[in-house]
Amino acid sequence: MRNIALLTEYDGTNFHGWQSQKDLRTVQDEIKKAINKLTGESVTLYGCSRTDTGVHAKGHVSNFHTNSRIPIEKFPIALNSHLPKDIYVLHSKEVLEEFHSGYFSTGKIYSYSISFEKKGRALDRNRTYYTNYILDDEKMRQGAKAFIGTHDFKAFMGSKGETKTTIRDIYSLDVLKEENKLKIIVEGNGFLYNMVRIIAGTLYYVGIGKIKSEDVEGIISKGDRKYAGITLPPQGLFLEKVFYKIKLF
Amino acid sequence: MRNIALLTEYDGTNFHGWQSQKDLRTVQDEIKKAINKLTGESVTLYGCSRTDTGVHAKGHVSNFHTNSRIPIEKFPIALNSHLPKDIYVLHSKEVLEEFHSGYFSTGKIYSYSISFEKKGRALDRNRTYYTNYILDDEKMRQGAKAFIGTHDFKAFMGSKGETKTTIRDIYSLDVLKEENKLKIIVEGNGFLYNMVRIIAGTLYYVGIGKIKSEDVEGIISKGDRKYAGITLPPQGLFLEKVFYKIKLF
Repeated sequence: MRNIALLTEYDGTNFHGWQSQKDLRTVQDEIKKAINKLTGESVTLYGCSRTDTGVHAKGHVSNFHTNSRIPIEKFPIALNSHLPKDIYVLHSKEVLEEFHSGYFSTGKIYSYSISFEKKGRALDRNRTYYTNYILDDEKMRQGAKAFIGTHDFKAFMGSKGETKTTIRDIYSLDVLKEENKLKIIVEGNGFLYNMVRIIAGTLYYVGIGKIKSEDVEGIISKGDRKYAGITLPPQGLFLEKVFYKIKLF
Repeated sequence: MRNIALLTEYDGTNFHGWQSQKDLRTVQDEIKKAINKLTGESVTLYGCSRTDTGVHAKGHVSNFHTNSRIPIEKFPIALNSHLPKDIYVLHSKEVLEEFHSGYFSTGKIYSYSISFEKKGRALDRNRTYYTNYILDDEKMRQGAKAFIGTHDFKAFMGSKGETKTTIRDIYSLDVLKEENKLKIIVEGNGFLYNMVRIIAGTLYYVGIGKIKSEDVEGIISKGDRKYAGITLPPQGLFLEKVFYKIKLF
């Protein structure tokens, strides 16, 4: 059987996340329905990551096995014609039969957008977290340093998280500022449930002075959720890119 | 009575335009409802412009008369607490009793966004017009020159337009390019029904080679809608700014 990988963008606003759930609108179900309309097959669709309700993706990777003989370059146009407008297949690629978009991923980049402007509160409400506090981005950058490297991120996992180990590698964590907005960009080998939103919430607390930048290291090492910052809401979070050993997309 | 002017941002996606319509969700009705909740009064709300379904505003101006004694600077916070999230009052200002946000406006800036990228087709679908054609922005810039000045824009009015005169002044019309996206920015003393979307559609036709840039002048002077380009869809259109003799906001 052929194994087809898809690079997909979606607006998470009107989805109950990526993963299939009974009677709820999910990205996985919509893509599976589109594949079914195109090929007649009921496939299993494997995903690189299960984003939550309201979380967006600029480059989500998934894959499925098929007997269809549709030329590989035709999949995006053909699938997009069956997909709702809040999902868009950017690229498709034929991969080795054993490839799995989740297990084979070696790293991911997420971004989280925060704004303390008035402008954009109506137009960008589903893609940015708005606050009335003025954030000190330099302190946030100081606090961000403590996350880099291999750590036990137990303190940065939402209560619904299930995992064999809470140890993860963070390769980089940047705070980019543009006028009264900022973007937190984090790259790591993998992320626990809600981990990016809790890291963003901890840096947000640093930015408003509720947590000192020099205390972040201790918050990580204590490993207790209660010392970290809030879980920021989903709308500011974007899955930007997923990496594999080979360059897939 | 006090006369209060409001500067408002809204996401037009889920509105049937600005102006009140029976049984339909409109921006005007939502703001009137919020004023009613705040002051107990059923006010008349005057607007600078009636945007269509799906059209957005970054700086719409409206005004109403009230006996309320709420301090002027409290209106934005108080109204926003009663408004749905796709409308946001940015500023409020007390103005002379005779001020009318429509009749007193001396000019407006609109922008129209077009993209020929794959990226953004899910995330920006409600704020950009996406096309598969590659646009020649230099030719569009050439064609744009013909619009500048005082002209009869009869050829650039939608069929539902009603007006005493179809003569308008265009002060500037720019085509800004950024990678595979572009933004048309137009400033004038006033605009006919659908005028910006037909100007954008005509420049779009110039960009894809369907109309020659040197033919735009003749299309304007012929004054016949059938020679101009298509009316581009509403989602790419933003009311950016409204001007008055005095600096209001």
